Amino acid sequence: MKKAIVLLSGGLDSTTVLAMAQKQGYEIYALSFLYGQRHKIELEFAKKIATHYKVKEHKIANIDLRIFGGSALTAEINVPKNRAIDNEIPITYVPARNTIFLSYALAYAEVAQAFDIFIGVNAIDYSGYPDCRLEFINSFEKMANLATAAAVNGKGVYKIHTPLIKLSKAQIIQAGLALGIDYSMTFSCYDPIITGDKISSCGKCDSCQLREAGFASGQ
Amino acid sequence: MKKAIVLLSGGLDSTTVLAMAQKQGYEIYALSFLYGQRHKIELEFAKKIATHYKVKEHKIANIDLRIFGGSALTAEINVPKNRAIDNEIPITYVPARNTIFLSYALAYAEVAQAFDIFIGVNAIDYSGYPDCRLEFINSFEKMANLATAAAVNGKGVYKIHTPLIKLSKAQIIQAGLALGIDYSMTFSCYDPIITGDKISSCGKCDSCQLREAGFASGQ
Repeated sequence: MKKAIVLLSGGLDSTTVLAMAQKQGYEIYALSFLYGQRHKIELEFAKKIATHYKVKEHKIANIDLRIFGGSALTAEINVPKNRAIDNEIPITYVPARNTIFLSYALAYAEVAQAFDIFIGVNAIDYSGYPDCRLEFINSFEKMANLATAAAVNGKGVYKIHTPLIKLSKAQIIQAGLALGIDYSMTFSCYDPIITGDKISSCGKCDSCQLREAGFASGQ
Repeated sequence: MKKAIVLLSGGLDSTTVLAMAQKQGYEIYALSFLYGQRHKIELEFAKKIATHYKVKEHKIANIDLRIFGGSALTAEINVPKNRAIDNEIPITYVPARNTIFLSYALAYAEVAQAFDIFIGVNAIDYSGYPDCRLEFINSFEKMANLATAAAVNGKGVYKIHTPLIKLSKAQIIQAGLALGIDYSMTFSCYDPIITGDKISSCGKCDSCQLREAGFASGQ
């Protein structure tokens, strides 16, 4: 059975990607990160999703990006609310985050002997992060094929799969619903409100806005 | 003053690189990693070296690569001793390690507003790790310039500096001695013997062999 590393945040996009990869016949090795994110509650959702989809393995890497900070997600900076999403890079951008995440996925792939890595980046309904663009992904893929043992021993070629890259949020949701995804299992908010056992989305951050607009236009 | 991120392990090569970057007039932001390495004692040397060279900042990122394992440095696998160093990738290779290290350096560079990253890779007297080769470094540099905010806002171009890439170990040591480096401050062994307060190198791992041969032929 062919193996895939799937980056799983616990959100709408990465859950859709996981279901797509499984549908394509891959055995799933899911990888999540505790990186000092404000919304670390997303990992509880990631665990439940991994269990629901009966993945082969689910690893959570503990990597502290707060040592650098520089983002509203990893430093004491407020998450912007009700922002008009334009082409500017917002303060929720975490420096080099997807480069770091994909580097870990590559390490995992080398050890698990997988050559397929899936990531839920999307360059349509997104916040303008530079590391969600296809030119970055293509360049990472080239680098990966020079970085690793396979570059020398010729035992395989790494492929970074981005099945959502050109889909609108509404199209992602439609594709996921067709695969039977229960999106209530997923969580997208950057700035959750947690009161006792109750977890609520703020409804106003970029991620909430994109998610809600996706559901609204998809109905 | 121009700023540089310098990857600092505490070993001979990275210390030489730090001194070279400082000599070139860079303000030094040193970055080390606690990654689950067998020889984590190297970090004590890295701290002393950073202090000695009065770096602007020294960050130690805590990242656990033992969750993947797959190497004699990050799993319960013996470090080979008195190995004939050939073109095979040895079991001390840590999957995707330099990709991960450089990704962190890139995150640090974004936050510190540095565009120069120094790494002590060497492709002459080395263990055959794929991520020490110049083709990998060049590809990483291209990727870095598509991954980050600067790729969109045009505020700078990242450069990965590899001043040791074509030097023999003896030449590295000669260059370092000319810069006044006290190499007794550095530590290179993969499999140190620690008895109470006494730290000894094994003298038999690849890293010890390369270091000793470098000193022997440099005299």
